[in-house]
This record gives sequence, structure tokens and C-alpha cells, in this order.
Amino acid sequence: MRETIYNSLDPSFKTPFGAVPEGTQVTFRLSVPDTLGCTTPYLCICRWDEPVRLLAMQPAGKQGGRDLFRLEYTAGQPGAYFYFFDLYVNYTKIFRGERGEGYLSSAPQGDRYQLTVYERDFATPAPLRGGVLYQIFPDRFCEGTPHTEMPFADRYYRKNKDGEPYFWPNEVDDGLLNLDYFGGDFAGIESKLPYLASLGVTLIYLNPIFEAHSNHRYNTADYMKPDPLLGTEADFVRLCAKAKAQGIRIILDGVFSHTGSDSVYFDREARYGSNGAYHNPNSPYRCWYDFSPQYRDGYRSWWGFDTLPEVNEHEPSFQKFICGEGGVIDHWMTLGASGFRLDVADELPDSFIQLIRAAVKRHGEDKLLIGEVWEDATNKVSYGVHRAYLLGGGLDTVMNYPFRDAIIRFLRAGNAAALAEVLMSIVEHYPKPAMDVAMNMLSTHDTVRAITAIAGEDCEGHDRYWQSGRVLDEPHFFFGKRLMRLGFCLIFTLPGLPCIYYGDEIAMQGYKDPFNRAYFDWNCTDETLRRCVRELAARRRANPAFADGDLRILRAEGGLLVFERRSGSHSATVAVNRSQAPVTLTLAGAQHTLPEYSYLLLDAPAGL
Amino acid sequence: MRETIYNSLDPSFKTPFGAVPEGTQVTFRLSVPDTLGCTTPYLCICRWDEPVRLLAMQPAGKQGGRDLFRLEYTAGQPGAYFYFFDLYVNYTKIFRGERGEGYLSSAPQGDRYQLTVYERDFATPAPLRGGVLYQIFPDRFCEGTPHTEMPFADRYYRKNKDGEPYFWPNEVDDGLLNLDYFGGDFAGIESKLPYLASLGVTLIYLNPIFEAHSNHRYNTADYMKPDPLLGTEADFVRLCAKAKAQGIRIILDGVFSHTGSDSVYFDREARYGSNGAYHNPNSPYRCWYDFSPQYRDGYRSWWGFDTLPEVNEHEPSFQKFICGEGGVIDHWMTLGASGFRLDVADELPDSFIQLIRAAVKRHGEDKLLIGEVWEDATNKVSYGVHRAYLLGGGLDTVMNYPFRDAIIRFLRAGNAAALAEVLMSIVEHYPKPAMDVAMNMLSTHDTVRAITAIAGEDCEGHDRYWQSGRVLDEPHFFFGKRLMRLGFCLIFTLPGLPCIYYGDEIAMQGYKDPFNRAYFDWNCTDETLRRCVRELAARRRANPAFADGDLRILRAEGGLLVFERRSGSHSATVAVNRSQAPVTLTLAGAQHTLPEYSYLLLDAPAGL
Repeated sequence: MRETIYNSLDPSFKTPFGAVPEGTQVTFRLSVPDTLGCTTPYLCICRWDEPVRLLAMQPAGKQGGRDLFRLEYTAGQPGAYFYFFDLYVNYTKIFRGERGEGYLSSAPQGDRYQLTVYERDFATPAPLRGGVLYQIFPDRFCEGTPHTEMPFADRYYRKNKDGEPYFWPNEVDDGLLNLDYFGGDFAGIESKLPYLASLGVTLIYLNPIFEAHSNHRYNTADYMKPDPLLGTEADFVRLCAKAKAQGIRIILDGVFSHTGSDSVYFDREARYGSNGAYHNPNSPYRCWYDFSPQYRDGYRSWWGFDTLPEVNEHEPSFQKFICGEGGVIDHWMTLGASGFRLDVADELPDSFIQLIRAAVKRHGEDKLLIGEVWEDATNKVSYGVHRAYLLGGGLDTVMNYPFRDAIIRFLRAGNAAALAEVLMSIVEHYPKPAMDVAMNMLSTHDTVRAITAIAGEDCEGHDRYWQSGRVLDEPHFFFGKRLMRLGFCLIFTLPGLPCIYYGDEIAMQGYKDPFNRAYFDWNCTDETLRRCVRELAARRRANPAFADGDLRILRAEGGLLVFERRSGSHSATVAVNRSQAPVTLTLAGAQHTLPEYSYLLLDAPAGL
Repeated sequence: MRETIYNSLDPSFKTPFGAVPEGTQVTFRLSVPDTLGCTTPYLCICRWDEPVRLLAMQPAGKQGGRDLFRLEYTAGQPGAYFYFFDLYVNYTKIFRGERGEGYLSSAPQGDRYQLTVYERDFATPAPLRGGVLYQIFPDRFCEGTPHTEMPFADRYYRKNKDGEPYFWPNEVDDGLLNLDYFGGDFAGIESKLPYLASLGVTLIYLNPIFEAHSNHRYNTADYMKPDPLLGTEADFVRLCAKAKAQGIRIILDGVFSHTGSDSVYFDREARYGSNGAYHNPNSPYRCWYDFSPQYRDGYRSWWGFDTLPEVNEHEPSFQKFICGEGGVIDHWMTLGASGFRLDVADELPDSFIQLIRAAVKRHGEDKLLIGEVWEDATNKVSYGVHRAYLLGGGLDTVMNYPFRDAIIRFLRAGNAAALAEVLMSIVEHYPKPAMDVAMNMLSTHDTVRAITAIAGEDCEGHDRYWQSGRVLDEPHFFFGKRLMRLGFCLIFTLPGLPCIYYGDEIAMQGYKDPFNRAYFDWNCTDETLRRCVRELAARRRANPAFADGDLRILRAEGGLLVFERRSGSHSATVAVNRSQAPVTLTLAGAQHTLPEYSYLLLDAPAGL
């Protein structure tokens, strides 16, 4: 076996593990074969794309044919730092290989290690740790008050809840894209609170609820009013209060990078009295938008969709409207919301996110601000800017799409080493406060449904992808359900907050939007996955190691992933066997046989 | 709901149930709507194709607008009787509908009921009831003595046990059809006796073991010698003795309708000194065969295969050779065999089967004679003759292919009513002594492997059918294994003896011959199905209702089949849910939820 030169995941080489608060003393150690004749290796480190600093390392003795070196490094300003080591012998450098393992190379460039440094006082809501999230797409969860007519004439009511969402182009009406409403409402969610509590849910994330003229409501029409189809403001207040009484908080979806064209503010469609920015140059909202002949539609819009005019988040009147006292955030949090999820965080400048954070946290340190970011949020560059999402003054955390994608890939193909690589990479890069409450999901309203992603045809870029809902045949559905259990086990036991996308607990199917947004099948009697979720939630509640424990991968071979969570005297070991054959392994001194496609959760110290 | 006029499965209309010994008094009852004005209905009954007898039924009162009639009928000579009722009113008759339910029709012909009458003293080995069979294809089960050379130069040794059987035409040699040998032997079986005992096996059925020049050994070369690749006669004696010590009997495959052309008797290939019938007109075996220019090869052969010359089973010297004292049957039973399975029973005249029966039973009433018949053996016509297989003087029982086919169809498509129809039809037609020991299997060496039949592509008549072994993808394999459990449950709890085709307990795959005959995968660590088989065998042992209990279908709706077995004070209820959704049902006063694709076995009286 090759001996380790450096490994950022191994405390023999780097302490403390992972991201650190500014000012932390970080110790780096190297173990270099003495045949190389290295006398003074250098740590070559820089923040983002600033110039590289070279720091000479100190000899720290010899051991079995190896020269040992050491460096005490004090973490500076918050940011993502990238480093490698240069031995200054024959151009030999140490770059990052798989699972943090350093490798020697004389190539001029190689993968660098990342050291994330975050603000000393960065904290996220402690009460949320160990909890369970549940994401609800409001129109599709539960219709509590049967609707006889729609509040707006251009809405198409779907009385038969069993039907699939309409998709343009379809046989019914190609103008109906996202205008078919199933009528889910606040009353329906309220009636299902006992159900959610029984699943172990402690936090609900609602997709947009503000008045808007599409079933997804991402094209906000009025930030200050709930959509009338959902209920009244009073209904929302009651929902929050009833949820709180059952130990459940509610966070909302904040869509602040754009509004609907069909809104109080823009009002291109003249639904709101034509006082909006589009028709009235003197509109108080005119300055929110960017009108210019350079744009195809005469104004800047999100990804070129003319129904989604972009707002200028630097505009003080908009900032005040969203973040000021009595502003949007203040309004809804006063009514009972416990935080926000920020839609398309990449589109929002860090300075604006800081204002939002302040507005949220004015209501208490336990209030949550989570962002939609699809990649590793600690080294994300958007529009040429290095983002400070998770360094302290911005988001509490993000939707953990890297975990999600890696888990789905693992469940499809069974490569545990590839999963471990992604897990450790994110855990290493993310500040612990952010990691502890990262949103770990198997699906969202923006992805293919989990069971379809796991067991369905891999048809990215394929027509069918866009045109089908419940397509799994019997064997694939059964197989998919079995693997869903492994998926739930992973999101419930890995660092972060597990989030169940409504209906995933009954194995609802669907390729992409809108088929991933079907109405919840309340007639489903299948308890298999729900039983699994309840058990996992109970195990999670019972063991603090799941709330904030460190993660250590014990094995990642073939389809077998074994890891440990440890927090103080609490620990747990989780084994997931995603292979066709049973696996026998020794955990905590006892032999266990894991059947194919099964998991095992031991609340005892591991002793592999 | 339509009221019942007659139902042969319902004791209100016919007692006793099913087949009866000759001389039994059978009571038939009808309940006819009085609006029809029927005064004297007739039972119209005939044995096989003999002339119909008309027996007038007697009035038996009136009840709620129905005229009741009754007839006491004494069962005559053994045979299959077919009957219907004629009301003699407007040509109205009562024919057989689904699940024994009579329907009125004025059509001249309709489905008739069957009443099987069997010999009063027909008995089958009582000690075998409640047992478990295991079928071994000897070359492919276990190689106990590693072979370095083959006993005959034309054999091709397969050292790598993981390889698929060769099939002509293939890439290796198109002359190798059935000449590749994996080297399974008596010593191997002997070494696996503890394994078989642990599965609950009480009876082994060995495919042919006599010297023969193909890996299946159906082309017998020498009836009096074990094939040297399997071991010596002494090895066979020891195997039987060791098996007996573990409570396991062994029955052999008797291939008496033809020999190999490459045999002591025919010796076309001149391997045995050219004293056989083919080259020597004075051969003592010449009279066994039918030489005539009318046949393409100059002699009559089985299905036209020139390597399988047919013998004349009426020839006294052949009968004596097989059935006489010191003959083939006597020889092997003296060495330790406990009975025979007769290959292609349809090809053997009833008179010859009677001689074989006598030869077998000379060794004890507990010795077994089972026949290969693919259809309902009580009304089978072969070569224009109504067969008396199960009437008393012939076979003890048959391989129950009708159950097998119906179970596989049920596991594929989930139609419980269709399965119930076949089950009750066979149970109604078969004499109870035969039914109690009928061989109930999911696969044999002549069928597609169970898991492939259940979860594989339905590709009858398709090239792939003949050219592939392990073809199930991961979801289908997993799904198939789950359904295999239901299949095992059915054969272990329905009337008859369950028979495990070697390797089915580890979900070995394969389309037809030779892919259904791969070498047993002794490296398989998957215990899922084995655990299931062991549990079922234990439940079966513990409850006499499974040994000889009556069968009553309690429910057969959608994918749900619920039935009861009852024998005296013992009873058991079995529920099999072959549907995508869980089913909740009340059994014995308690509510049970059966997950999708699961079964439940209750050793308590049912009270649906």
C-alpha cells in the first residue's frame, strides 16, 4: 500500500477538519519519502483568485524513511482558500487526489485543496438541528376547502385529483401551461398537520404562497397577500399557529430576483389597474425594473421569460420593500413564518442577501434563511463574483443539491466510493453551522421525482422526460421503492436536515416539471416508505449524533457505504448496502448481514 | 346476486367433494328457479366416451321460489365421468361455468362436469405426505470428486463452474450439444445432504443417473450401471444410505420409452462391441426395437431423434428386463432407491405402467411411482387412449404442471381468480391419494427457470428464449426474487408435495434447456429465498393440514388469493397478495395487512 503524503481528511495531516472560523490555528503536516531529498516544502495558498502566498514548512523529524514537516497557519479573512504544497525538488508538488489523498506530481497545475474560512460568529438556528423538513408545493398537497369557483377567471380547476398536471403542448389546451390548479390550500395543510407530525416533521418549507398567476406562483403578483385560492391571511396565521402547537415551523419561498409581469408592480397584463411599471412611467415601481430597448421585450427578464421581469436588487426602494420594517419579510414573519428559502440565490447580490438575513434574524436567531444554490456553495462564482453565501453574513445554509445528485447516482449505479467522494468534499468545504442545517433532499419541485430518478429510464434530453408522469412498470416501481428506503436513510443520517418532498414518502412518480408536481395521492394505502420515514425520524430524534455529529466514512467499496456520526459521547454507525448481494460486516464487534438493498443503523460506537 | 343452481365445489350440491372411489354413493342436488317449471331434471353422465346415461332426479321440496331436486348416484367402474343436467324444459341444460358454478343454457353442448372414479384400494405412500421434494440434475448440482479426466473421450469437461451450459449453435463447437459436463456426482450430492436436510428436504428426485452419453442422460446406454462420471454403484448405495440416515429418500428417473442409440442395447455407435440391435440382427435386444424402412433412419425413434430409438414396451423381454425380478427397477431399489419418476408417461402403455407399479411396490407400499404428464392426468388421452394414470393401478401421482403453469401465470399477471380456477379444477378431478403427493414445482429441467419465467421477458417463440441464461436486469431480478417467495408459499401450502428444482432456492436464472441447467452457484450468499423455504418447510412439518387437508378457496379477487387447508381438527389459512398495493383483510377475527407481494400463513381456523 502506498503511504500517505498528505490527506486533508486525516487528522494526522490537517487539524482541525474542514472549514474553520477566521483566526483559527490550522496545523498542516506532510510525510514525504526521504528519497526525494526535500528539505523545505511550501504551503502555497491563496484566497479565491488572489495571489498565492508561499509559506515554508518546518522539519518535524523523520519516521521510517519519511521526512516529516509541519506548519502552523492562522486562518485569515473569510473566504474560500485554495492550496497545494510545493516540495521545491524537481518541480514536485502535492495536489489533491480522491478522498483528500495527496499525490506527487511535477505538472504545473493540479487539483488544489480547499480551506473554507468563515466568520467567527457565524451561527445557524440550533433548535432546527436534528429536525425533519417537509417541502410542500401548495397547490398540490391537499385541498381543505373544496372549491366551486376560481378566484380568477383564467385559472383552470382540476377537480379530479388523480389526473396528471397538464403540460404544454397537450391535448387539452396549449395555453394552459401552469394554469391548471388542483386547489390545494392552507386549510388542507392545516388538516394534515397531524399526519406531518406523525412522520416526524418539524419544519415545513412551502413553495410560494403569495398571490401569483400560475400554479407554481413563482411569478409573484402581490408580495403582501396570500394567493386567494390558498386562503386568507387569517388562514395563514392560523396555519402557522396550529403548526407551532405541534412543534412544526413553517418557512416560505422568497422570490426576490423577479416579479410576475402580471403583478401589482409591473402589471403588463393590466390586471391591477395599470399603475404598474410597464404601462406607467411614473409608477413607484418603475425604478425596480430595467427598461431598455436592448432587451427583446423592452425590459430585462429572468432567463428571457417575458412573464418574469427581473428586479434591480440594488434599488433602495425595492430593498426597503423587501427587507425594511413592515416590508415583505417582516410582514410574513410577523404573521408566523419562521424563515425564508431564497429562490435563485445566485441572482441576488451578497449585499442584498445580507439585508435579507438581517430582516429574518430581527425575528430571532432561530429563524432560518436557506438559499437555492445547485453547486458547492462555498466556491460558487456567479456573474464573475465569488459568493459569500455560507461565510457568516449571508445564508444560513443551502439546498444540498450536490448530496442529492450523488445519492441518486449512488442509488442508480451503486458506486459507494463516488458517493463518499462527494459527501466528504461538501462536508469538508461547508462551515459546520451551515452543514448542520443543510437541506438534504431526494427530490424537489425542480427535479425529477426521486423514485423516477432512481428507477426510471435515464432519459435526460429525451422527449419522454418532458412528457410523462407515472411510467414505472411493476418491477421498476417495486425496486425503486426499495431503493427509496436507502435514500431516506442517507438523508436522515448524513450531516444536514433531511427534507421530504411531499409525496416522496408514498413513492409518487414523475419526470420533470410539471409531472413532479402531481396532487398528493391521499388514497394511497402503502405504508412501506412512511413506516421507514417514521422510524428514521425517531432514530434521528433519539441520537444527538445525527443533529451535529462529525462524519467519518468507514467503508466505501462496491455498493457498500459505511459511515459514522459522532458528537461528544454520542455516536451512530450507518451501513447502506446498495448491491445485489447481501454483505456481512463487523460493526461494534458484532457481525451483521445486510441483505441486498438494505441499510442498518447502529447507535453504538463502531469498531470496524 | 344470481342464486346457485348447481355447483360441484359446493357441498350443498354435491357430496362428497371431487373424485371418489368406486362404489361411493354420490349425492347431487339442484336448486332450479320454479319459473322454469321443471319437474324432472336428469343427470346425464357417461364414462369417457361411452354412451350417456340419463338418470331422473327426484323432487326434494321447494325453497324461496326454487324447486329442489336430488339424486343418489353410485359411482361405477373407475374412470373419468363427464356429466351435465338436462331440465327437459325448453332444451334447458346445466353446464359447468367458472369455479364449478352451473349455468343454464339451451345450447346443445357446453362444458361438462367431471367426476373421477378411482379404485377402492388406491393408496399412495402416507409417509411422504407433508414432505418436501428436491430435484437434482446430477451433472449440475455438485462436483464432490474433482475430475481430472473424463471416463469417455467424447465428453467435454467444464472446469469453470460459473460458465453457462453450451448450446448449439455456439461459439465453441456446434457438435457439443449436451456433451459439456460440469462433473456433478454422487459424492457431491452426498456432501450436500446436510444442506438439503437444513432446507427441510425429505425426498430427492434425481434426473437420470444411468450410464448415458449426454449430460442429461436421457439417452440411456446401460440401465444397470451408474454413469461412471457420477461414481460407482457403491457410491450410489452409500449416498442412499446416508440420505436415509438424514430422513431423505431418493427416487430415480426411469426412461423406459426409448434408449440411447449409443447404448449396450442398440449400439449404433459401436461403443459397446457392436452386439446391439442396430448392427446385429441376432442381438437379444433386436426385438425391443422397431426396424422398418418406413422410418427415415430405419428404426422408430422418439420424436424422430435418431439418437433415441424407441423401444416396444409390449415386448415381454423388455418388460421382464425392466420390471422382472432382478430387473432394472428391482436392481436400483435393492441398492437403495425409494421409487421412480417415469419419463414421458404418455408414451408408456397403461399395462406397462402397471407392471412398473408392481415392481416398485414389491419393495414396499411406501415406495413412490410418479409420472411425467403435462396436463390434467385424469382426463388425458394419448394416442387415442383414455389414460388410467391416477385411477389406482398405475401411477401414484404426476408432476403437477397445471399448477405450475397457473402459479407462474398468477405471479406474472396477478389474476387470483384464474389461479383459483385451475387449482380447484385439478383438486376436484384428482383422486385424493394422488393429489396428496402430487409434485408441485415452480420449475423443472424441462421448463424455463422459475425466476426467469416470473420476471423475465415473455419470449416464447423468440430467439432469445433459446439463447440466454442470466438475463434479468437488477430491478427484474429483485422483483422476481420477491415473487419467488410467493411461489414457494403456494407450492408449500397447496395440496401436493412441494418440489424445489435445484438452484431455484438461490434464484438461479435461465430460459429453456440448456440454460435452465446451469451448475449450482455454491458461492451464492443470498439467504433470502433459502430462509423463506426453510420457514415454509418448518410450517409445513408442524401442521398436518398441509399434508392431506382439504382445499377451500376463501377469496380470489384481483391479486389476492386466500385459501384454507383443513384436515380433521387441524387447519391453516394462507393469504397471498400478488398486487402492487398492501391489502387489509380479516382472518380468524383479526385484521392483517399484507404488504404488496407478500404472503401470510396462519395456523388458525379462518373466519372471514
